[in-house]
Amino acid sequence: MKDYSLTQVECEWTQQLNRWVETFRPYSTEGKCATYIPALAEANPEHLGICVASEGGQALKAGEWNVPFTMQSISKAISFMAACSIHGIEQVMERVDVEPTGDAFNSIVRLEAHKPGKPFNPMINAGAITVTSLLPGKNAIEKLEPVIDLLEDILDYRPPLNESVFKSEWETAYLNRSLAYYLKQNGVLASPVEEALEAYSRQCSIQITAEDLAKIGLVLANDGLHPYKGTQVVPRKITKITKALMLTCGTYNASGRLAAFVGVPTKSGVAGGILSAIPPRGRNNGPFSHGCGIGIYGPAIDEVGNSVSGILLLKEMVEQWDLNIF
Amino acid sequence: MKDYSLTQVECEWTQQLNRWVETFRPYSTEGKCATYIPALAEANPEHLGICVASEGGQALKAGEWNVPFTMQSISKAISFMAACSIHGIEQVMERVDVEPTGDAFNSIVRLEAHKPGKPFNPMINAGAITVTSLLPGKNAIEKLEPVIDLLEDILDYRPPLNESVFKSEWETAYLNRSLAYYLKQNGVLASPVEEALEAYSRQCSIQITAEDLAKIGLVLANDGLHPYKGTQVVPRKITKITKALMLTCGTYNASGRLAAFVGVPTKSGVAGGILSAIPPRGRNNGPFSHGCGIGIYGPAIDEVGNSVSGILLLKEMVEQWDLNIF
Amino acid sequence: MKDYSLTQVECEWTQQLNRWVETFRPYSTEGKCATYIPALAEANPEHLGICVASEGGQALKAGEWNVPFTMQSISKAISFMAACSIHGIEQVMERVDVEPTGDAFNSIVRLEAHKPGKPFNPMINAGAITVTSLLPGKNAIEKLEPVIDLLEDILDYRPPLNESVFKSEWETAYLNRSLAYYLKQNGVLASPVEEALEAYSRQCSIQITAEDLAKIGLVLANDGLHPYKGTQVVPRKITKITKALMLTCGTYNASGRLAAFVGVPTKSGVAGGILSAIPPRGRNNGPFSHGCGIGIYGPAIDEVGNSVSGILLLKEMVEQWDLNIF
Amino acid sequence: MKDYSLTQVECEWTQQLNRWVETFRPYSTEGKCATYIPALAEANPEHLGICVASEGGQALKAGEWNVPFTMQSISKAISFMAACSIHGIEQVMERVDVEPTGDAFNSIVRLEAHKPGKPFNPMINAGAITVTSLLPGKNAIEKLEPVIDLLEDILDYRPPLNESVFKSEWETAYLNRSLAYYLKQNGVLASPVEEALEAYSRQCSIQITAEDLAKIGLVLANDGLHPYKGTQVVPRKITKITKALMLTCGTYNASGRLAAFVGVPTKSGVAGGILSAIPPRGRNNGPFSHGCGIGIYGPAIDEVGNSVSGILLLKEMVEQWDLNIF
Repeated sequence: MKDYSLTQVECEWTQQLNRWVETFRPYSTEGKCATYIPALAEANPEHLGICVASEGGQALKAGEWNVPFTMQSISKAISFMAACSIHGIEQVMERVDVEPTGDAFNSIVRLEAHKPGKPFNPMINAGAITVTSLLPGKNAIEKLEPVIDLLEDILDYRPPLNESVFKSEWETAYLNRSLAYYLKQNGVLASPVEEALEAYSRQCSIQITAEDLAKIGLVLANDGLHPYKGTQVVPRKITKITKALMLTCGTYNASGRLAAFVGVPTKSGVAGGILSAIPPRGRNNGPFSHGCGIGIYGPAIDEVGNSVSGILLLKEMVEQWDLNIF
Repeated sequence: MKDYSLTQVECEWTQQLNRWVETFRPYSTEGKCATYIPALAEANPEHLGICVASEGGQALKAGEWNVPFTMQSISKAISFMAACSIHGIEQVMERVDVEPTGDAFNSIVRLEAHKPGKPFNPMINAGAITVTSLLPGKNAIEKLEPVIDLLEDILDYRPPLNESVFKSEWETAYLNRSLAYYLKQNGVLASPVEEALEAYSRQCSIQITAEDLAKIGLVLANDGLHPYKGTQVVPRKITKITKALMLTCGTYNASGRLAAFVGVPTKSGVAGGILSAIPPRGRNNGPFSHGCGIGIYGPAIDEVGNSVSGILLLKEMVEQWDLNIF
Repeated sequence: MKDYSLTQVECEWTQQLNRWVETFRPYSTEGKCATYIPALAEANPEHLGICVASEGGQALKAGEWNVPFTMQSISKAISFMAACSIHGIEQVMERVDVEPTGDAFNSIVRLEAHKPGKPFNPMINAGAITVTSLLPGKNAIEKLEPVIDLLEDILDYRPPLNESVFKSEWETAYLNRSLAYYLKQNGVLASPVEEALEAYSRQCSIQITAEDLAKIGLVLANDGLHPYKGTQVVPRKITKITKALMLTCGTYNASGRLAAFVGVPTKSGVAGGILSAIPPRGRNNGPFSHGCGIGIYGPAIDEVGNSVSGILLLKEMVEQWDLNIF
Repeated sequence: MKDYSLTQVECEWTQQLNRWVETFRPYSTEGKCATYIPALAEANPEHLGICVASEGGQALKAGEWNVPFTMQSISKAISFMAACSIHGIEQVMERVDVEPTGDAFNSIVRLEAHKPGKPFNPMINAGAITVTSLLPGKNAIEKLEPVIDLLEDILDYRPPLNESVFKSEWETAYLNRSLAYYLKQNGVLASPVEEALEAYSRQCSIQITAEDLAKIGLVLANDGLHPYKGTQVVPRKITKITKALMLTCGTYNASGRLAAFVGVPTKSGVAGGILSAIPPRGRNNGPFSHGCGIGIYGPAIDEVGNSVSGILLLKEMVEQWDLNIF
């Protein structure tokens, strides 16, 4: 991000962000930190932070925008882009479809009910594990490299792994293990089961901040062209597909509601992260009409898996600033 | 539509549309006209027509843009907007959700598997019949009025009912009848079963053209503001939700693929109609950057229920003219 | 039944039955009379009656053995035998399978999930409606005749229809109507939908007593040979299949538990009736080692649909008198 | 088995068995040896053997009655009896139900669709793995002991493990692994996942013959009382439940058809084994009216998983000798 002072209007927008953060922070009590991965339960449920990054200006920030947390499901969007960049979209599509399901993120039913058992989309666990199995590398550590590499291309630093979250996740990953062995049985996995599973658990444990998510969102909004570096870090067509998947399946089985009532491509994670990409819109001259990336962090999640106060903050901002893509 | 000559660039775009029509017309042999409603089987499978309507200019047309056909599932978007306009979104949402499912349009499984048996979205048959049951009126004929009224507001004429298609559909509507009685059992229907069913079958049999669809699409693209009349024919928020539903669930269980690989809010019908709404985009100065409505007609449909040549035409046009909303 | 006095041992057994009736009668408070058919809710939940009929002797009776009630699902066993007798087993099997499902009696999921949508067995509603559609007759009244005829062959009188239960059932049969139209769509029904449905609702409303059920059970136990008349009222092979179906699917989704923990072919109905057929056993010289038929009535049913006190009574009797067929 | 010459009638019955074996042996071409466990594919598909063991006499044998093969799913009946004998029926029932499902043996759908995810019965893989997890022992080898011990009690020798089948099965057990991790997630497994899985794979690889199966069937027919030793090797009530489970769910998703058209408690395995238990019947003086155990081996299985020629042989014998329990 450029390092100059905020313009006056940017100051006003930042003040607005600060007001919203304090307005929605108390709603965290309606959710709670994820407990199925023990290490996630240690987060502070009252945290709420946001960063909005746009091409032409300063990144606006409010609340706990710089508290680190793990990507969890948000990493699915990254590994999908990495796999498509490496293998091409067609080859990835041979193993995973792009249909939303309305099912929970960890559902296994469709793998049996719909032959040939290809996962319905890369934003549910079964699909994401399949995508990760496609990443090059002789072991889980090597498979993680393309994901970190892509993040470095966007963020200009290599985000670290949170080892304690990884270990916690790895030891309790019964359901993912069940999904992965089912996929192996169906001939869908492209690598040994445990290797794909470990690589997937590792990518979920990559640690970033809301500011990092905003930068990722901006690159997506910008069709893969890095707004500061001027390089195409992800092919344009792949970013279109990724944004469509974020909109149709990015927020678990609340995806339809988010598309209808918020209307921006969004991927969430159970650690409380939210990544949104707002393409340029031709309708108004309001804030960020040239597009922006949004990163939000609020670790208290609802029963579906989305940050309670984070989603409320996103919805209010999209409505007030007319960011809905429809 | 304004009645003046095409500008030179509009002539070029029309010539392009004509070329695409002839390019994709032969692909109709990969599909066939719907046979489960006998009267639909009489359409000419080689037909392919398109109309693109935009705010500032002439409607561009090519192929069989003026051949009449029945709305079928496209009417789901109209009745949803009518019901929401009358009752408010919250009341409609009490009876139908907005989640995509990945299931076939006529699937009944989720009504049993997911308590309390509320249809997942208004773009599948179960949801659409529920929405229609909410329309005011003491019988099926009266229930149809709000749908025709809304169409008249947009089109400036009252589109007729194709009686032979209606009769054909009504006599063979075993599956819709099964869905409707299941909904009644679950307490979801707001009217007597046969009344909701007949009204739904009637709305499916409303006869329009590709040009009509383009006008509907334009009003949607324009957030419900009629571009020529200057009146708000549908509340803005309702059009946002409708476009989101078209994108996430508008083309049966190919909705995810269409979102990913075409990327425009689209509702299709088994008679071969396609309705797309392209909001203004801020990214380019190419054709229709201020938004447009698209109507397509191609009665040979694929196994999922979408016009084969129509979808190919839409995809090519969206790619070449950069109409993808993401 | 022969009309002579009870032997001394028969007197003892009757006293035992009386004791069991009073022991288990209070358990009716753990269930309640079916409410989804309004007329059934008027039964006295404290009623509990039993009749045991055997070839060589007097029918033993206790409690409300002569209170009339409607057959409901028990009629499925009768219409199945009638249809198989008329058309042969193979022809019936073309439209309905004989696999237990573990699903609720009114489940529709499998009709969609398992192509070609043939009902899994004739003891669930979908299967029973299909079987009834096969019965000869130009309308619902005529279709009922073969069922009443078979009952008359066994009982020596024509049991009446309870018109108020029939009307009550007919007006609220949304779910059966949904199932039937689904079956029609799949090409499984052999008659018009409403005709099959009405005939099915009528057969459910046939009024009998526990004594009647005991006689039916005895004919089944005796492989279709009427023990008093000496005539074969149902072909032997058909009774074997019917008894197998009663054991594997006769008591809704408690069938497995009943098979495991009671172990006698049993068909229940939501009006509180229980029909059991005990074939001759080679293991003991206890009561009814030459086989018997059992009829029970206890209208307070559990959530699965079986008489609470009736099942407890049956279980105790089977254990004490060693009637388990395994 | 007693070691004296066959009586004349036993000679006739044996000749009959020989004729049936040769009649049905050619039908093996309609099936094929299981291939999903590579080592099973090495069996001779033309093999067909049978042994019938009864209390009072000689065991009758025909065909390849002494060719060894692995128990596979037949071991589910043994481990269920072992677990119930050790823990009591109630404790086992806390983790596994006894309802038939109509699903394939390796189905996972119900574990997700029916909360709390308890397996429907111990004769499908999910249920059997759960039962095995309950067996005492600190590792897979120790967990196998109670199964082998029970077999020794019945057979008077300790049947060996086929190591090559075990290894083959263990290396390709993706689906069982998926099921087991799913069960672990649901809190259903009573031991570490890999321990339960290995013990289950080992018990499937226990090697026996048709003669051994006949002896097991005879003990079951005899309610757990060993006919030669006079000891109760399994509690009576447990054998009743086991026979009921064999009838309702013992032959995969053909269980209903077998119950209806054969009518004897039967457990099959994909290696081609069939175990049937015929309780004493009170109806005739034909062969084995005092009950018997039947063991059959025919490795060419149908698509459901049952021996093609073996089932045909069983069906013919049951019909001709009136062994149907109904």
